[in-house]
Amino acid sequence: MGMTMTQKILAKHAGLDKVKIGELIKVKLDLVLGNDITTPVAIKEFNKIGINEVFDKKKIAIVPDHFTPNKDIKSAEQCKLCREFADEMDIENYFEIGEMGIEHALIPEKGLAVCGDVIIGADSHTCTYGALGAFSTGIGSTDMGAGMATGEAWFKVPEAIKFVLKGKLKPWVSGKDVILHIIGMIGVDGALYKSMEYTGEGLYSLSMDDRFTMANMAIEAGAKNGIFEVDEKTIEYVKEHSNREYNIFKADEDAEYEKIIEIDLSKIRPTVAFPHLPENTRTIDEIHDITIDQVVIGSCTNGRIEDLRAAAKVLKGNKVNRKVRTIIFPATQKIYLQAMKEGLLEIFIKAGAVVSTPTCGPCLGGHMGILAKGERAIATTNRNFVGRMGHPESEVYLSSPAVAAASAVTGKITSPEEVAR
Amino acid sequence: MGMTMTQKILAKHAGLDKVKIGELIKVKLDLVLGNDITTPVAIKEFNKIGINEVFDKKKIAIVPDHFTPNKDIKSAEQCKLCREFADEMDIENYFEIGEMGIEHALIPEKGLAVCGDVIIGADSHTCTYGALGAFSTGIGSTDMGAGMATGEAWFKVPEAIKFVLKGKLKPWVSGKDVILHIIGMIGVDGALYKSMEYTGEGLYSLSMDDRFTMANMAIEAGAKNGIFEVDEKTIEYVKEHSNREYNIFKADEDAEYEKIIEIDLSKIRPTVAFPHLPENTRTIDEIHDITIDQVVIGSCTNGRIEDLRAAAKVLKGNKVNRKVRTIIFPATQKIYLQAMKEGLLEIFIKAGAVVSTPTCGPCLGGHMGILAKGERAIATTNRNFVGRMGHPESEVYLSSPAVAAASAVTGKITSPEEVAR
Repeated sequence: MGMTMTQKILAKHAGLDKVKIGELIKVKLDLVLGNDITTPVAIKEFNKIGINEVFDKKKIAIVPDHFTPNKDIKSAEQCKLCREFADEMDIENYFEIGEMGIEHALIPEKGLAVCGDVIIGADSHTCTYGALGAFSTGIGSTDMGAGMATGEAWFKVPEAIKFVLKGKLKPWVSGKDVILHIIGMIGVDGALYKSMEYTGEGLYSLSMDDRFTMANMAIEAGAKNGIFEVDEKTIEYVKEHSNREYNIFKADEDAEYEKIIEIDLSKIRPTVAFPHLPENTRTIDEIHDITIDQVVIGSCTNGRIEDLRAAAKVLKGNKVNRKVRTIIFPATQKIYLQAMKEGLLEIFIKAGAVVSTPTCGPCLGGHMGILAKGERAIATTNRNFVGRMGHPESEVYLSSPAVAAASAVTGKITSPEEVAR
Repeated sequence: MGMTMTQKILAKHAGLDKVKIGELIKVKLDLVLGNDITTPVAIKEFNKIGINEVFDKKKIAIVPDHFTPNKDIKSAEQCKLCREFADEMDIENYFEIGEMGIEHALIPEKGLAVCGDVIIGADSHTCTYGALGAFSTGIGSTDMGAGMATGEAWFKVPEAIKFVLKGKLKPWVSGKDVILHIIGMIGVDGALYKSMEYTGEGLYSLSMDDRFTMANMAIEAGAKNGIFEVDEKTIEYVKEHSNREYNIFKADEDAEYEKIIEIDLSKIRPTVAFPHLPENTRTIDEIHDITIDQVVIGSCTNGRIEDLRAAAKVLKGNKVNRKVRTIIFPATQKIYLQAMKEGLLEIFIKAGAVVSTPTCGPCLGGHMGILAKGERAIATTNRNFVGRMGHPESEVYLSSPAVAAASAVTGKITSPEEVAR
């Protein structure tokens, strides 16, 4: 029996010809990642090991993105710890605000993730880089500490679900709608410790930004990772952003899958996840009179240039509803600059939205847009658990940037078709 | 004996022909202002009075600017209180994020302050509008509550210090340097409960933005208010921003002043206030090897378009030092848009600074740039008290935007002359 994409990457990095589902293996890491919340804990674990250098100063990335620019004294101290450690260990990929962005948008942009890599990150959305045909997964701070020391990590080889994509997305439908549709179908534990492997001719029509969004939310179905078959778009992206060598792994014809699910992209409609789980999805036509107080467009899920373009397309010539706070977070400085050059930021400001520095911000209830009791937000973020964006009695609805922008204009959850001029 | 500018404005609003220093008078208010910290307390006081409408729904302004976009649940609840009160009372000048900015930049921009007004605001830097030849002063939340109910406030008529300006500022010297120079000279209690009245031919060479900065920091010398003689620039500004009637009050020739201080603008050099008081000033040539961790350009003191232009002039073609976090806060959405159109934001981003939504942010240790223990910032803000921007063992140096920008490039406090290309 053959191997899946994930199994092939893991086997290669374990120095094995073959791995089997459930097997425990030790693999070499191409990148160990942390942020301002998890790195301080990882440093503590690293220090327990009692060595005074990291396994490879080029293969560690530290991105202070969650509570930056520093929210308070505590977060300032956390960032200081990261900065001092990076300095002491001569870590090349420490990204200060000003050169930074949200880690999962920044890492591919900086060429630190390429096809065939094994990447661990002390952040659950590290699965994002699966869009590039890498094995990439979130781990705890202890594993990050050990990873920084040894350059290795232990994994149980996951089984896989194969998603065969066909057809093409309709206008106003994006990768976010696809992944919300899938999570709505299989549930938040539908892929528990499994690999979500995307293939099929439909895949080729998806942009890289669509794929990043879809891989990013693999964890919201409980998956170990999400991974996309590499095509020309992937290779183009990787070559544009990195000089590193890359390896393409294709699943064997006879690879073993727990399940094969066919998705017709042309049938997917704008989809919104209702509180308090990403699986509580409804299509836009099923939604009526959900008024909102705040709109958040950004995050590691949907803060890339195509996301901002979609939002701008809806907001152009429109005004944000006076009762709605609309906050836009370009995911990196580079995206911010690009959006400015394309006139997107001007559209946002003229519409009455505010544009923040890149930060995870309100997604995790961090800062820059926290909800009061009884308030409701529609957000392009990835989780809508109880209290995720603030008060335990607030609500978060997850959507694409287009739907979020349309909702900003009307003040209630709205289809972009109704609003765009 | 004649009256000062301030005394004339107060007399007029008290319905009196003449007022004397030390006299207690009741004056009619043209505007009552509050922010997201002070308004909730004022609402509580207002509610105690037991009436259910404000004195004039056009003459109250509420600007949630300190902890917005909402820093945390507590600030979200505070903003919600303000919003609901504004809604219930039908207050016209409630400014939601997206249409807002930092109150003291927003109020003149929206035409809510004109020459001859009496304005109270539950924020100490309400003295800013003195730049327009208005009597404008910070009060407590109780007075704000009473002001919203009655449209009146009690004052003790202040005595005055007359500042006679002559000469012209040299390149790279701005209103911020002038006011820091003055505070350095007279001390943080040098004008305690007094009016700082600016006049003299030198005044005409100062831009409105210079004057706003100088009036803004009157409170840092302990003053009741700062006030500028009205000239053509003032009238031009007022006409551009407001349709309201305005009144010009000029001090009598024989007005009584506690002191008359002559300032030769041409002799003022870039000036920095060292920790932990605005009076601890040194000129740039007296400063050596003060390394910094963070630069803050913005605030109600220095977040206006000229401030951003000065910073951009220094940063153009330069790169921010890798060890310095540089955060720029345009003071209002309008200023943000203008700065974007002029290419200033592009210069900032390319230099490696981040640009935030308008917010008071780190100035008061609020959010968006808080300092850890032992860290040092140079900031264009107005106060450098112990712990003002974060940890009690952090330090804040106050300067102009040009000096702050130059320091961002070198990583230590630097003259703009050394850095600008």
